[in-house]
Amino acid sequence: MLRTTLNRYFPVLTWGKTYNRQALSSDLMAAVIVTIMLIPQSLAYALLAGLPPETGIYASIVPIILYAVFGTSRALAVGPVAVLSLMTAAAIGKVADQGTAGYVVAALTLAGMSGVILLVMGMLRLGFLASFLSHPVIAGFISATGILIAASQLKTILGIDASGDTLPTLVLSLITHLPETNMLSLAIGVSATGFLFWVRSGLKPALLKRGFKPRHADILTKAGPVFAVVATTVLVWSQNLSDSGVRIVGAVPQGLPPLTMPSFSPDLLQALLLPALLISVIGFVESISVAQTLAAKKRQRIDPNQELIGLGAANIGAALSGGYPVTGGFARSVVNFDAGAETPAAGAFTAMGLALAALLLTPLIYFLPSATLAATIIVAVLSLVDFSILKRSWNYSKSDFFAVASTILLTLTLGVEAGVSSGVLLSIALYLYKTTRPHIAEVGLLAGTQHFRNVNRHPVLTDPELLSIRVDESLYFANARFLEDYIYDRVTANPKIRNVVLMCSAINEIDLSALESLEAINLRLTEMGVKFHLSEVKGPVMDRLKMTHFLKTLSGRVFLSQFEAVQALATDLCRRGSPDEV
Amino acid sequence: MLRTTLNRYFPVLTWGKTYNRQALSSDLMAAVIVTIMLIPQSLAYALLAGLPPETGIYASIVPIILYAVFGTSRALAVGPVAVLSLMTAAAIGKVADQGTAGYVVAALTLAGMSGVILLVMGMLRLGFLASFLSHPVIAGFISATGILIAASQLKTILGIDASGDTLPTLVLSLITHLPETNMLSLAIGVSATGFLFWVRSGLKPALLKRGFKPRHADILTKAGPVFAVVATTVLVWSQNLSDSGVRIVGAVPQGLPPLTMPSFSPDLLQALLLPALLISVIGFVESISVAQTLAAKKRQRIDPNQELIGLGAANIGAALSGGYPVTGGFARSVVNFDAGAETPAAGAFTAMGLALAALLLTPLIYFLPSATLAATIIVAVLSLVDFSILKRSWNYSKSDFFAVASTILLTLTLGVEAGVSSGVLLSIALYLYKTTRPHIAEVGLLAGTQHFRNVNRHPVLTDPELLSIRVDESLYFANARFLEDYIYDRVTANPKIRNVVLMCSAINEIDLSALESLEAINLRLTEMGVKFHLSEVKGPVMDRLKMTHFLKTLSGRVFLSQFEAVQALATDLCRRGSPDEV
Repeated sequence: MLRTTLNRYFPVLTWGKTYNRQALSSDLMAAVIVTIMLIPQSLAYALLAGLPPETGIYASIVPIILYAVFGTSRALAVGPVAVLSLMTAAAIGKVADQGTAGYVVAALTLAGMSGVILLVMGMLRLGFLASFLSHPVIAGFISATGILIAASQLKTILGIDASGDTLPTLVLSLITHLPETNMLSLAIGVSATGFLFWVRSGLKPALLKRGFKPRHADILTKAGPVFAVVATTVLVWSQNLSDSGVRIVGAVPQGLPPLTMPSFSPDLLQALLLPALLISVIGFVESISVAQTLAAKKRQRIDPNQELIGLGAANIGAALSGGYPVTGGFARSVVNFDAGAETPAAGAFTAMGLALAALLLTPLIYFLPSATLAATIIVAVLSLVDFSILKRSWNYSKSDFFAVASTILLTLTLGVEAGVSSGVLLSIALYLYKTTRPHIAEVGLLAGTQHFRNVNRHPVLTDPELLSIRVDESLYFANARFLEDYIYDRVTANPKIRNVVLMCSAINEIDLSALESLEAINLRLTEMGVKFHLSEVKGPVMDRLKMTHFLKTLSGRVFLSQFEAVQALATDLCRRGSPDEV
Repeated sequence: MLRTTLNRYFPVLTWGKTYNRQALSSDLMAAVIVTIMLIPQSLAYALLAGLPPETGIYASIVPIILYAVFGTSRALAVGPVAVLSLMTAAAIGKVADQGTAGYVVAALTLAGMSGVILLVMGMLRLGFLASFLSHPVIAGFISATGILIAASQLKTILGIDASGDTLPTLVLSLITHLPETNMLSLAIGVSATGFLFWVRSGLKPALLKRGFKPRHADILTKAGPVFAVVATTVLVWSQNLSDSGVRIVGAVPQGLPPLTMPSFSPDLLQALLLPALLISVIGFVESISVAQTLAAKKRQRIDPNQELIGLGAANIGAALSGGYPVTGGFARSVVNFDAGAETPAAGAFTAMGLALAALLLTPLIYFLPSATLAATIIVAVLSLVDFSILKRSWNYSKSDFFAVASTILLTLTLGVEAGVSSGVLLSIALYLYKTTRPHIAEVGLLAGTQHFRNVNRHPVLTDPELLSIRVDESLYFANARFLEDYIYDRVTANPKIRNVVLMCSAINEIDLSALESLEAINLRLTEMGVKFHLSEVKGPVMDRLKMTHFLKTLSGRVFLSQFEAVQALATDLCRRGSPDEV
């Protein structure tokens, strides 16, 4: 018992037992590749969050180790990611000024709150809450965020000061400051961006053509950002470009992650509560999608609730070791997986690699131009931008399209928090709206079968004294009245009707409000001399109805199948117009 | 065209055309009875709202006339009601002190805002929004409000000062001030309450026994409150009880409703926005339920969206004529209907009666003790209190019970606004939660039929290589993943399975997220060598699927019925355990 519980909360106990030399070597190889990729990326994302560059490295060390202990995914790489960095900047920009100690403490606090929220959600097994972020809304949100992030990096490429949490304010600010553009910075930024785009798309085929092994071509491609970092750093240092106004990373403290403490000020906690909640949910959704995609490829299973605990621990770790909110990132996890990581130990080795970098390499990046980091970010996030979801949803369902389009529009114009909140609320509202006016079909018998279909779509047999209707939705408070109105309208419009059968094959639930409506329908039809029957009532619904008086007062019967109902009630089955005739 | 539009927005044009002498005499009779009942009730509700007593009369004059022009119910009587009076007191008590001019203006403003909200909702045809207040939540809310109102009137009966928007604060305040009780006031209040309870329950049978005609017995019963008012007023006046501390209504201005103007101060409008919204929705729900109940008895039809316009006009009228928020009241409408009102003209005659009362009768109520009015309110609201909904919902559905119980609890402990908001949100949340984990059944063929039922509930025939599952819920973003997981678990657990048929008879909608899940299931099953089929896909769902690539990539087929699917795919149908054996 204790053992099972321990194994559940510490997945490391399961995979650790069978860890062997072969897994070790795969994990080490993956760790080397990921570490090389992560160094520039971590620095860049920290700058995107408005934090000192070393924060990005710190946020990749302790969290990775904690996730390796508590998480269930074997390939997920936890650390700073683009979307959460932008959300962090938006959230703490409201409570503190960039560059102050308060800003850094706010970031720690945000990570700590997010960690606690994730942990509590995991313990309460609330992983299902993430399913309220629909695929289209997530796709729209990620694309819009990509645009916002790329736009926010333009200022660094141009070497100017500009600010804004939304696309209009950002663009306006960029235009205002455009005359102050530093041409050297622009040249470095544009070349780095062009180079990195080429590395992404053109380098690997070129290397393969020249006879490189796919594995080596891969590693060289992953090292592209490192090459850009080294080249531009050397350029700035050798040509003294920082004296000409090219902004550089500057002094970065050398050492292991510090022990830090988030703030417990009630005002700060209150101000950060909503952002922390959104960051937790968005981070969890991003992480779980990546983890499940990768796990599926190896037939492994992800436990969403344990993932919450793993991510919660990682974020609390980030709060205590000078980091900021983290999650399982898409890019780094895919690289980790492709590089052959077999167990979470790969993550632990990556953490060691980054710790070494923090100890030894920071003096070397003094002259690293910020424009290069901005280029890394732009190239990374633009690969996430994909507006095809707009076309896809437009073709499939206008309400999905509506949710996506407003998520994108509101993210760009009002910011990330408003965008994603409205996307979720709108999806739910549209779903609820649809359920309030369910599809109701009059059905008839398909000749020669026992099967009933919509009279308006199929040539079927019906009886003029018998109205068979199928309501295609569970009955609950928000649509109970709708069914009532439909039945009254149909029965008053056709005085021949003697029996009404409600075919319940699509009714998965009847709540108390709907039960009251059914009672009202039964009563009203009885007054009109019409009997009310049910057919094909599902087991769970029937169990519920049996506990009420409804079945005793029902004027008609409950039939196991619609066919039985028609056999018992129909006196004069005749052909109704086929769909073409209607 | 213009004529139809005019008729729609001015129902008076429809019924006015056929108005005749017989209808006039019925309407006049009803108006007399309702006027007699309304005079004490209107004064009492105004005091409940913390407003001067005449406000209650004013709020019953212009609104009734406007509703008669715009409303669709023939029997609804519009005016102040208990619940809205309490909500008004709670809302404006936060922005102004009772007895000040600001308090009265805030009440006018609240009525005006509520009027505009209702009018806009009606024009946007948002009447369906009211269906999100489920029957059980409404029942719980009304009962809890009844308790709150009755408790708030105890202070008037006791002749003490006490305050509080919630039951705990109210009770505490009552206990603190209990020593200041005025014994004369208590005696009047308790006798009036006892008398009115007896009028309600014992008077009519007693009168009938003595040979009164039912109609006359009815009128005498309705006049009970008037008798209590006259008797206690005469008592206080003749014995000079007001000198002994019995609180009286005092001077009430004599005259027709004044022309008033609500405030347009942005601060006030903002502070009152949420209360105005809640008052609009609650008022609308109360009114529409009454209107539909009464209309059903005469086979008349209520147009919910036109009702919104009628109530909106009534509330704007209240704002411009010294009133406060109004709606169609249950008690007064039932009295109006029972008294034989045939058209909204009865309302107009009632308005005239009340206008006469405002012009002539106000000096006569100078010595009317407040305790008598409190007794009227207590007797009226306690008849609305009915906690049987708790037992009923407990027996039927725990989630309905949970919604009702928290509505009652939160209304009593946190106040009306928190109570009703949380009731609505909780109902929606519980409904959504249920849809995220749909009921999924494995189905088999009922021998000798073409009908398929749950293998765990019925003795059915199944094929070991064929998995037929029926998911009892529409597929949408919040449950798409759940189905995916279920199918993977079932198929990996049973390597014999070669075909999976998803029986879609209960699937009323597949949104884009769910479509992506189906695509993922199809892909994954194909990789495992299993074919994926659909059966009984509904017309509207099929139309949607035909526009996508999904049907082209589907490894299996789409069958019109589950029976066809089994005929085509099953090779070895054999009996599965009956429910008793499982």
